[in-house]
Amino acid sequence: MTANSAPAKHIDAPAILDPDQTDLLRALDEVFAGWGRAEGAREILPPPVYRVSDLEKFDVYINFPHLALVAAPLELAGGPAEPAGGRFTPADLRAAQLGLPHATCFGAYLFYEGTELGQDTLITLVNRCFRNEERYLPLRRLVSFQMREIVALGSYQHTQQTLTMFTERITAFGAAVGLDLNLVAATDPFFENDGARAALSRLSPVKHEFQVGGLAVASVNTHRNFFGERCRIRLAGESGYAYTSCVAFGLERWLAVLLDVHGSAPQALLAVHDAAAARGA
Amino acid sequence: MTANSAPAKHIDAPAILDPDQTDLLRALDEVFAGWGRAEGAREILPPPVYRVSDLEKFDVYINFPHLALVAAPLELAGGPAEPAGGRFTPADLRAAQLGLPHATCFGAYLFYEGTELGQDTLITLVNRCFRNEERYLPLRRLVSFQMREIVALGSYQHTQQTLTMFTERITAFGAAVGLDLNLVAATDPFFENDGARAALSRLSPVKHEFQVGGLAVASVNTHRNFFGERCRIRLAGESGYAYTSCVAFGLERWLAVLLDVHGSAPQALLAVHDAAAARGA
Repeated sequence: MTANSAPAKHIDAPAILDPDQTDLLRALDEVFAGWGRAEGAREILPPPVYRVSDLEKFDVYINFPHLALVAAPLELAGGPAEPAGGRFTPADLRAAQLGLPHATCFGAYLFYEGTELGQDTLITLVNRCFRNEERYLPLRRLVSFQMREIVALGSYQHTQQTLTMFTERITAFGAAVGLDLNLVAATDPFFENDGARAALSRLSPVKHEFQVGGLAVASVNTHRNFFGERCRIRLAGESGYAYTSCVAFGLERWLAVLLDVHGSAPQALLAVHDAAAARGA
Repeated sequence: MTANSAPAKHIDAPAILDPDQTDLLRALDEVFAGWGRAEGAREILPPPVYRVSDLEKFDVYINFPHLALVAAPLELAGGPAEPAGGRFTPADLRAAQLGLPHATCFGAYLFYEGTELGQDTLITLVNRCFRNEERYLPLRRLVSFQMREIVALGSYQHTQQTLTMFTERITAFGAAVGLDLNLVAATDPFFENDGARAALSRLSPVKHEFQVGGLAVASVNTHRNFFGERCRIRLAGESGYAYTSCVAFGLERWLAVLLDVHGSAPQALLAVHDAAAARGA
């Protein structure tokens, strides 16, 4: 079977959120970003495409080739092709030098690439993420979605304290907005091809997910010094590479589970505001 | 020259905005979105990828094939390819069914596709946009950037009154933040292949740009009923298709020209806050 003859998978139109959903997503994002800011995080703004050569640093094309989407310009030699059946064939394309990220935190490591941190650092960022999935489900499994992250970089102790603190915050917030959150140990294929870290991750899980009815809406992840090493990030006064960890929120999935519980986006928005206010400014 | 042998254009790493730049961009976006809200606009949230079959409705692959970027998954038959020199060749890819938009307002027309508006409508949205350019320039010409838009849909009179009102607001805000804005009539190749509208646009320009030193930082655009027709949007009580117009802001370009004038992002942020406060709540 050649690439051209392989049957095209049906892709639903990527969702456009309506005004009520938009207000709810923005409010949730503001709550999670605010948690980061309250702990001293500032925000950076990453692009939704990177050079393939940058994403390669994180083994994404080795560990996640099935999820990957890459961006290519059209081949214009001989006149631009017209799409047929809603698709351009590979022969219509030029080489792809840009990759669409499947997680947000890559931007944090590339932002600090080649630098020495003066101190333990916390940063927050939100991005559009992209995953080529076998099947899609509205709000729950999207080809493009938004992921807010809070990323810790520096000492191992700092990365672990950050996860402990936000695990508590997510648990309390989930209860306050009426969600039945389950904290579940999960596996992270980031480290599959990295012998020492893979062995360690079998001893101590590197990813925990907060699930609602089996759907992961947030995760806390410890990367040891995988990203620090790949981006040559150091911590002042320390030998070796910086440790990192991240807390990730799948924003559309929060919408999905809150809509299930509260029935409508405006009702869910009230619950989010109440929960944020109860926690205090 | 085949696609595979064509020399690869160098692509700089897409920019990651630092915390001060991020705060400034967010403040600018909030000012422009606030103008829309003050006139009754609500916000919708579009995705940064669409089906190629949806973007085709707007003739983007006929009128802008050189700017287009499309997204494809990797061909996994025979084992996933590894990128060479930071690029996947066309043979490494499967068909591309997703297109990266080069403007934000497409999301507004797709949101209302096939509907009848109850009344004249104003809506606002921001998106990541993508353009395959010959050369890139930091903040001024990016492969991926953010465009805030305010879109009017309904009667022709409504679409024109909207442009008049925001032309005044942009002019006043530009002066308040110290920019030397020039309003310049421009051409819009959207209508190149549409005889009647092309003839009309020669009589009456359909696009005006606000330029700073030759760089367009905002534009006001009238589309007559091009998008209304392509997305079968109607206005209650009217025959024919709805008219549309849009006001667009290139957010990173505002950063570029404000940094030139004010020297630093924190200084520019003060100017933006002062200008917004002077205008009044």
